[in-house]
Amino acid sequence: MHDPQQLRLAIRNGEWTSPTINAMPGYVLCNLVVVPRAYALDFCIYCQRNPKPCPVIEILDPGDPEPKYAAPGADVRTDLPRYNVYRDGTLAEQVTDIRQYWHDECMAFLIGSGITFDAASARAGAPRPANVPVVTTAMQTAPAGPFRGPVAATMRVFTPAQAIIATQLTARFYFNHGAPIHIGDPALIGADLAHPLAGQPITQIPDGLLPVFWACGVTPQLAAEAARLPLMITHTPGHGFVTDLLADRLCLP
Amino acid sequence: MHDPQQLRLAIRNGEWTSPTINAMPGYVLCNLVVVPRAYALDFCIYCQRNPKPCPVIEILDPGDPEPKYAAPGADVRTDLPRYNVYRDGTLAEQVTDIRQYWHDECMAFLIGSGITFDAASARAGAPRPANVPVVTTAMQTAPAGPFRGPVAATMRVFTPAQAIIATQLTARFYFNHGAPIHIGDPALIGADLAHPLAGQPITQIPDGLLPVFWACGVTPQLAAEAARLPLMITHTPGHGFVTDLLADRLCLP
Repeated sequence: MHDPQQLRLAIRNGEWTSPTINAMPGYVLCNLVVVPRAYALDFCIYCQRNPKPCPVIEILDPGDPEPKYAAPGADVRTDLPRYNVYRDGTLAEQVTDIRQYWHDECMAFLIGSGITFDAASARAGAPRPANVPVVTTAMQTAPAGPFRGPVAATMRVFTPAQAIIATQLTARFYFNHGAPIHIGDPALIGADLAHPLAGQPITQIPDGLLPVFWACGVTPQLAAEAARLPLMITHTPGHGFVTDLLADRLCLP
Repeated sequence: MHDPQQLRLAIRNGEWTSPTINAMPGYVLCNLVVVPRAYALDFCIYCQRNPKPCPVIEILDPGDPEPKYAAPGADVRTDLPRYNVYRDGTLAEQVTDIRQYWHDECMAFLIGSGITFDAASARAGAPRPANVPVVTTAMQTAPAGPFRGPVAATMRVFTPAQAIIATQLTARFYFNHGAPIHIGDPALIGADLAHPLAGQPITQIPDGLLPVFWACGVTPQLAAEAARLPLMITHTPGHGFVTDLLADRLCLP
């Protein structure tokens, strides 16, 4: 695959079915959240109030599946390899195409993902650890309408020097969760590393290393689940939407 | 005045009636836009699509006049010295209190202002010129619903060295229009310096100096006027809302 257009076409045609997480480094990878229009204003406000976990890269027009800004010509109903369909806040199905669920009142949000900064961080000397657990924390988001809940975080274990590099580097990626939300003792933010939502459990941080936490795109998904929307569709973890946006350009405000 | 709370109280009590533009350096100054709830989703999307002219700092709950994030305890109906009230897109009144217009379907947006970065820029060696005209340009915003129109810009004339300082410095201020949108020949962006919306006309740029343009908070106001909303309320230019947010903190993502 040479470019995002080619990758999205292969996904649309069923030729690419695996995760997109490392498929196209250098291009911005997005989380997808589709909500009914009736919930869209509250969801907008929720994202605005919680920019670190919910950095909105594009809001598509009601009923419009084409991300005209992030990937003109693409279709968010077919161009992700796998989707989670939630009904009343519960995961109902996993599918590879959401055209059957789509209607004029569907609104799609593309939300920045931390995956994007990992490559840049690695180039500067803080490579992505093999295990990046996603955990819930005791930190609460600012609520809006029915949307509320904890901040979910990704955790990376670094040497102190790498932690400083990663803090500086990710601070530039405003649309990809920005700087860390915490460095050091997981208990101070109530992070449950023994029971991650994804990734491998961690029971002990090796001496001399620091756990560093970033806000995570799972946060809005938890909030939307808790709000028990009649219908909500997201990407399946690891299977985000690959945009045409250059990661090194998007971070220049 | 020692702090923003004291200043807002003086404004509320009618003791402070002059512009707030330089009243409290170091604290984030915001533009205010109040729209009916029926237009709020489209206005949210408009701001999201145009983050340089419309960086949203806070969206208040429908009917709620208290900016719980930017200035807990404040009241956007009374804590600005002067407001513009538009009806069907036309300026109808200027008032010092908007409680008479306020109802449960009013939604207030606080939008970052370039004033905030001027002090930081000056500390780094690029002082604010005496005349900062606001102009329309030929650059168009990305539309959303009824909101559309040109990008308005502020123009500052700098030496090349100052222009470089100001570019780097303002790039850090994501919520205050960020980096410039243009440097150099005004004609390239269709900027009409001879007929500014505010400030003094400029007919010639002195040799050796560069005009530098930043997206301006007048942009969403122009869009809302063009959309002919039945009711829209903004701050009167120069009379923005002073928040409790530290400018040097808000720019850290």
